[in-house]
Amino acid sequence: MAETVCRSIVLKRRPRGSPRIEDFEAREEPIPEPKPGEVVTRTIWLSIDPYMRGRLSDRKSYAAPVQIGEVMTGESIGEVIASADPGFAVGDVVVGSRGWQTHSVTPAERLAKLDRNGPPLSTYLGVLGMPGTTAYSGMKDIGQPKKGETVVISAASGAVGSVAGQLAGRAGARVVGVAGGPDKCLFVQETLGFDDCVDHRSVNLREELERACPNGIDVYFENVGGGVQAAVFELLNPFARVVMCGMVSQYNEAELPSGPNLGFVVGKRVRIEGLIVSDKPERFAEWRALAQPWVADGSLRYREDIYDGLENAPAALAGILSGQNFGKLLVKVG
Amino acid sequence: MAETVCRSIVLKRRPRGSPRIEDFEAREEPIPEPKPGEVVTRTIWLSIDPYMRGRLSDRKSYAAPVQIGEVMTGESIGEVIASADPGFAVGDVVVGSRGWQTHSVTPAERLAKLDRNGPPLSTYLGVLGMPGTTAYSGMKDIGQPKKGETVVISAASGAVGSVAGQLAGRAGARVVGVAGGPDKCLFVQETLGFDDCVDHRSVNLREELERACPNGIDVYFENVGGGVQAAVFELLNPFARVVMCGMVSQYNEAELPSGPNLGFVVGKRVRIEGLIVSDKPERFAEWRALAQPWVADGSLRYREDIYDGLENAPAALAGILSGQNFGKLLVKVG
Repeated sequence: MAETVCRSIVLKRRPRGSPRIEDFEAREEPIPEPKPGEVVTRTIWLSIDPYMRGRLSDRKSYAAPVQIGEVMTGESIGEVIASADPGFAVGDVVVGSRGWQTHSVTPAERLAKLDRNGPPLSTYLGVLGMPGTTAYSGMKDIGQPKKGETVVISAASGAVGSVAGQLAGRAGARVVGVAGGPDKCLFVQETLGFDDCVDHRSVNLREELERACPNGIDVYFENVGGGVQAAVFELLNPFARVVMCGMVSQYNEAELPSGPNLGFVVGKRVRIEGLIVSDKPERFAEWRALAQPWVADGSLRYREDIYDGLENAPAALAGILSGQNFGKLLVKVG
Repeated sequence: MAETVCRSIVLKRRPRGSPRIEDFEAREEPIPEPKPGEVVTRTIWLSIDPYMRGRLSDRKSYAAPVQIGEVMTGESIGEVIASADPGFAVGDVVVGSRGWQTHSVTPAERLAKLDRNGPPLSTYLGVLGMPGTTAYSGMKDIGQPKKGETVVISAASGAVGSVAGQLAGRAGARVVGVAGGPDKCLFVQETLGFDDCVDHRSVNLREELERACPNGIDVYFENVGGGVQAAVFELLNPFARVVMCGMVSQYNEAELPSGPNLGFVVGKRVRIEGLIVSDKPERFAEWRALAQPWVADGSLRYREDIYDGLENAPAALAGILSGQNFGKLLVKVG
């Protein structure tokens, strides 16, 4: 290995509210030699996703929090620079769950090899990766949109929402996005091909949503919570399905606001179900097989929002939590 | 027909808050002759159920409201006193959805004939009827309790809750009831055989529930809403199922209180689903076939709470909405 130093970003203290750069610190260490079965990679792309806010908190959650002094977790794509596993050779490009660092030593079984001649590598962190698979599983396992139904997607221009809406459109549904600001709404309609998009910053959100959904709402893919959730829930049809994927609007809040009275769930026979895609590992390979041709032929659209340099990962995370990103958020590490 | 006068109870005005006797009025009319395909019955038993509060309100719901001046709806058991349908003869006993009246003229296809030599007739309005079927469908279609799981049932001594809990017990789950007052809690444990029962009037509801559910809660059969729902939701385990059958604590409220923040649904991958049993008509016959032997051999326990005389139906309805009933609420009409 020509490279000898690994830079990492570790958690310095638990953020209150929005994560700040002072909540993290950089660390430099020698890159260790791989033990048998391990692979050393140089990070190319790091994915930044809203779920990461949960890892910074010691509130009980589905995954263990990152500890103070520990390297922040994250999915990344890297190039193998040393290998002590027969399945991987120097120069291979791999994807896996590692962390915010320039180099990683990872057990081989946690890595998947990528084809350098396939789709752009970064897509394996977005449209073809965890976010895309989340959208696929949410629609296949819970939302199940049918022809003629109305499907609403919040955070519609984001990595998950953009795929969820395009899948609903392929199923023949009327697809209405909710996004923040006119640029994102234009992108959702013009580029992603949603039938309509409502700006959640509008003072008349409820009325605009009603106008965009004249036949009510049959499927809601929930990424944000808050006022968007309240407005959508009022318009749900009998037998509606709500894919509870995330509620990013409250991830920085210490005290969670109260929510909807659930009486409507009985009368309308609504199904509200939570989704964590790692529960369904088989969906990852299914989705890649399904979506790779759509990415290759350009029929599945996506947008990337790229920060340059590992040191900008904290700022990128703060940005995605306040809706400043526009498309799949990535950090170009090397 | 020897009898000539039908007494009915009609809606006089929409109640505010708890229904009162002055919200209804009695009406007398001649009993009509049946037209071809119709059957005239003399009512024996009338069922009183919490859902009836919804019919008194013009708030949008899954079923049309009763109109002012219209006979109040309800399931009843009656004896045929005149028939213009070849399928029914004078003296047959039938069950069906009719109304609060001493006599009814009903299309034959809406009636089911009962065996006079079978279980007590009143059971076809309770443990073997709509409430029992609701419990069965809720557990089969949504709750799906497994051996070793913890199942909590609110309104546990009621017509639905008592069956739901016994079904969970038969599935091998730990069953914890929530009921109002020591008499009901004793009945739930001693007679129905639940593993534990918590009094929702306790000031330490949350702590007592936690003590009764040391391994958390995997299935919640929701009949009441309010503070019980809030306490249960805090204790739900990952992959918990919530059968949303009713929220009787708020049926008399004009303004619905806010509800739970739904962030936990994502992290815990909870499924919350509404149930109206009439959506699944096939479950009625399934349940009768399954449960009749259990009623006959005494292994499926139930309790009835009987008001005497049709004129007491409004008071009975007011009582069930405030938890004054103790068991399946019935009015003995004739």
